[in-house]
Amino acid sequence: MLKAAIITIGDELLIGQTVDTNSAWMAQELEKIGIQTVWRLAVGDVWEKIWEAIDLAFEQGNLVLITGGLGPTADDITKPLLCKYFNGKMVVHEAKRKHVEYLFTEVLKRPMLERNYKQAEVPDTCEVLLNERGTAPGMWFEKEGKILVSMPGVPFEMKGIMTDEVIPKIFERFQIKPRLHKTMLTAGMGESFIAERISNFENNLPPFLKLAYLPNYGTVKLRLSTTVGATDEIIEETERLFEELAVLVKDILVAKEDKPMVQLVFELLKEKNATFSTAESCTGGYIAQLMTRIPGSSAVYEGSVVSYSNQIKKKILGVPEEVLTAFGAVSEQTVAHMLTGVLQAMQTDYALAVSGIMGPDGGSDEKPVGTVVIGVGNGQKQLIKTHHLRYARERNIEQTAVLAYHQLRKFIAETNKG
Amino acid sequence: MLKAAIITIGDELLIGQTVDTNSAWMAQELEKIGIQTVWRLAVGDVWEKIWEAIDLAFEQGNLVLITGGLGPTADDITKPLLCKYFNGKMVVHEAKRKHVEYLFTEVLKRPMLERNYKQAEVPDTCEVLLNERGTAPGMWFEKEGKILVSMPGVPFEMKGIMTDEVIPKIFERFQIKPRLHKTMLTAGMGESFIAERISNFENNLPPFLKLAYLPNYGTVKLRLSTTVGATDEIIEETERLFEELAVLVKDILVAKEDKPMVQLVFELLKEKNATFSTAESCTGGYIAQLMTRIPGSSAVYEGSVVSYSNQIKKKILGVPEEVLTAFGAVSEQTVAHMLTGVLQAMQTDYALAVSGIMGPDGGSDEKPVGTVVIGVGNGQKQLIKTHHLRYARERNIEQTAVLAYHQLRKFIAETNKG
Repeated sequence: MLKAAIITIGDELLIGQTVDTNSAWMAQELEKIGIQTVWRLAVGDVWEKIWEAIDLAFEQGNLVLITGGLGPTADDITKPLLCKYFNGKMVVHEAKRKHVEYLFTEVLKRPMLERNYKQAEVPDTCEVLLNERGTAPGMWFEKEGKILVSMPGVPFEMKGIMTDEVIPKIFERFQIKPRLHKTMLTAGMGESFIAERISNFENNLPPFLKLAYLPNYGTVKLRLSTTVGATDEIIEETERLFEELAVLVKDILVAKEDKPMVQLVFELLKEKNATFSTAESCTGGYIAQLMTRIPGSSAVYEGSVVSYSNQIKKKILGVPEEVLTAFGAVSEQTVAHMLTGVLQAMQTDYALAVSGIMGPDGGSDEKPVGTVVIGVGNGQKQLIKTHHLRYARERNIEQTAVLAYHQLRKFIAETNKG
Repeated sequence: MLKAAIITIGDELLIGQTVDTNSAWMAQELEKIGIQTVWRLAVGDVWEKIWEAIDLAFEQGNLVLITGGLGPTADDITKPLLCKYFNGKMVVHEAKRKHVEYLFTEVLKRPMLERNYKQAEVPDTCEVLLNERGTAPGMWFEKEGKILVSMPGVPFEMKGIMTDEVIPKIFERFQIKPRLHKTMLTAGMGESFIAERISNFENNLPPFLKLAYLPNYGTVKLRLSTTVGATDEIIEETERLFEELAVLVKDILVAKEDKPMVQLVFELLKEKNATFSTAESCTGGYIAQLMTRIPGSSAVYEGSVVSYSNQIKKKILGVPEEVLTAFGAVSEQTVAHMLTGVLQAMQTDYALAVSGIMGPDGGSDEKPVGTVVIGVGNGQKQLIKTHHLRYARERNIEQTAVLAYHQLRKFIAETNKG
C-alpha cells in the first residue's frame, strides 16, 4: 500500500513569509486516487536538515514528494543534494535543455543566462518529469521499492507536473484502491451541539469508518472517511450511513457535498437560469470576488457596487440622505435601500446587500464592532437580518460572506424568480 | 538558544481539506522575537503518530508548539495524549471552568453540555494558558529544560493565546537576541536576472548573512537574514549591505520594506491625503477587497464598480455601446472609458480600471486568455497598458491585482493630485 510523505523546502516557509499551500493541494490530489498522506514536513534550505528529512520521510511512507529548492539561485540546493543522495552524477538533459531554450526565446523573450542552462542539468539516477510551465525539471527517483519525486516550489509549476506526470505515472506503476470520503455541509449549529445530537450514531459507527467535524466560519462540515481502501460493500455501507447522518441533521443541512457556500449559490442560480448582483459596504468586494473566482460565473453574476463610502451609497445606489442620517450606514433601513438600488441598477433577478462594522475601529455602544446587516431580495420581496459577530476584522469579513451567501441561497431556494 | 519545532495536528491537514495557515503565522511571531523555527510537521489525529511527532520535534528543537486536536469531539485526542506524555492526571481547572460557563451563558447564550465541561479539564502537569476566545485551554508543559505548548487549531483562538500568553511567557523565561531580516520588494525582473546582476554582491556577503530570492506574481523580494542573533556590529553591517543592494537594483526597486503592494499604495495615498476608486471587470472585486482588508482604508478608498457584465459597463460607467462593439470589452478604449466613468461617479483623485480575459474560456486568437488591460488616471491624465499573462485563472487574477497596484503606485508617485 502506498503511503505518502510530503517535504516542503524553503526558509521562507519556516519563517512564515510564505504560507504552504502546496502540500494541501498535493495531499488532495493524492487523496483523490486513494493515497493517504501520513506526514508533512517543512524544513529550511539547509543541507543536513533536508537529508535528514528525506531519511525520516522514507521511514513514514514509500512515496515521498518534495517541493522547493530547485531555482537557479545559490540558496537552491535540492538538486545537488538529491544527486548525492541517490548516488548519481549531473548530466545535461537534452530535451529539458531545448525546452529551457524554447521558454527563453519564445515565451519569456529574454536572453538566456549561464545559470539558466544549469536548470537543464539533472542527476543521471533520476527520470526527468517534464515541466511545461517553467525551467526547473521534475525528478523521479526510485530506491529499494520506494519513490521520491522532486518538484519546483512555484505552485503553478508543481501543479502542472503533478497532474501531467506524477499522477499518471503512479497509476502506471501501482494497483490503487481509493479510500472513500463523504462530506456534508451544515450551518447554524456549533460542533459540540451536533456531536451531542449524533453521539449515538457516532458511537455505533463500524470500525472502518471515522467521523470528523470541520468547523469554519459558522458552518460545520461532517466527514465520513473509510480507514481502508473501499470495497463495494464498504462503499454501500458508507453511503447508507451518510444518508442516515443527513437525516439526523436535516434542519441544519446545507448540502450533501463538499463545496463552498458560494459554489452552491452559483449552481442553484445556474439551474434556475437566474442572475444576481451585489452591493457591498463592509466586505469591500470580497463577496464579489468569491463569486468571480468561479469560472463561468458571468452566466449568473452581473456585478457589484462596492459602496465603501456613504457618498457612493447615495449616488449610485440611491440611498436617501435622510435614511443615512436617521438610521446610519449600518442599519436595516439603509441595507433595504441598497438592495433596491442595486436591483434597479443591475436589473438582476436577485440581489444581495451588506453593511457592517468590521473593526478594529468604528464601533459604538449601540453598534459594536461585528454588527452586520445582510439583505437579500428580488423584485417582490426582501429579507433583512442583523447579525452580531464578535471576531477580528479578517474573520468578520470571511464570516459575513458565508452568512450572506447562506441567506441568499435559502432565499432563492424558497422563492421564485423576481 | 531557543529553537522551535511546530506540530499541527488534524486529518483535515493531511488530506488537504484545510490549508495550514497556523504554522506560518506562529513562525512569523517567533521570528519577530528571534526564535528560529527549524522544523514543521503535520500529522493526523492518530495517537502513535502524534506521540512520535513530539519525540522527533524534541530532537529538533527545545520549544515545541502544537496546534489542533483540542476540540470537544471524539476525534480530538491531543489533551489525553499530552496528559500521558507528561505523566499527569486530569483535573478540573477552576478558572477555566468559570470561563467556559461565562462563554456559554454570556457570549454564546446557549445551554452548556457535559462535553463542554470536559473542556475545563487539564493535565495537572501543565500550566494553563488562558484562552479568552474559546473553550479549549492552552497548555504549557516543561520537561528537562524543554518546553511544549499546546493550543487549539482554530486560528483566531491560537493567535489570542500566542499573543497574550505564550510570547510574554517566553520573554519572561529566556534571554532572547533576535535575528535580523531586511527585505526589499522589486518588480519587473526575473530572479535569474537579478541574481546575475548582483552575483558579485552575493558572493562577497559575510558568513553571518544569507540572501534569499522570493519570487511572487511578477515581483521578487530580496531578503538579507543574519544567521545568528544580531549584535550592534552585525546590525550596522547588515544595514550597510542592504543599502548597497538597494542601489544595485534601484531601477526595479519598489520599496525597501516587506509590505504587499496594496499596503504601499494605501500608505502613499494617505501621505498625499488623496482618494481613489476602482472599476473592475475581470478581477471581479479582488482588487477592491485587497484594499478594504486594510483597517482604515476608507480614508483613501471610496469604492468600486465591479462591472462583470457589459450592461453595467454601459449603465453605471458610461462606456459607449459603440466603443464596446468596435473594440470589445477587453480593449484600451473600453478601459479608458471605464476609468473616466468611475472617476466621475466616485469623484476621487485617482482611479484604476481593469478588463481582461482570465480564462479558462473566453480567449480568441486575437485576444488570448491572459490578455489584460490596466488603466490608471486622474482628472488630467490616463496611463493605459496591455499585458499578456500566461497562467491559469486564479493566478491571472492575482497577478493582475499586483500589476494594477504597481501601475497605480508609480502613477501617483510621479504625478500630482487630480
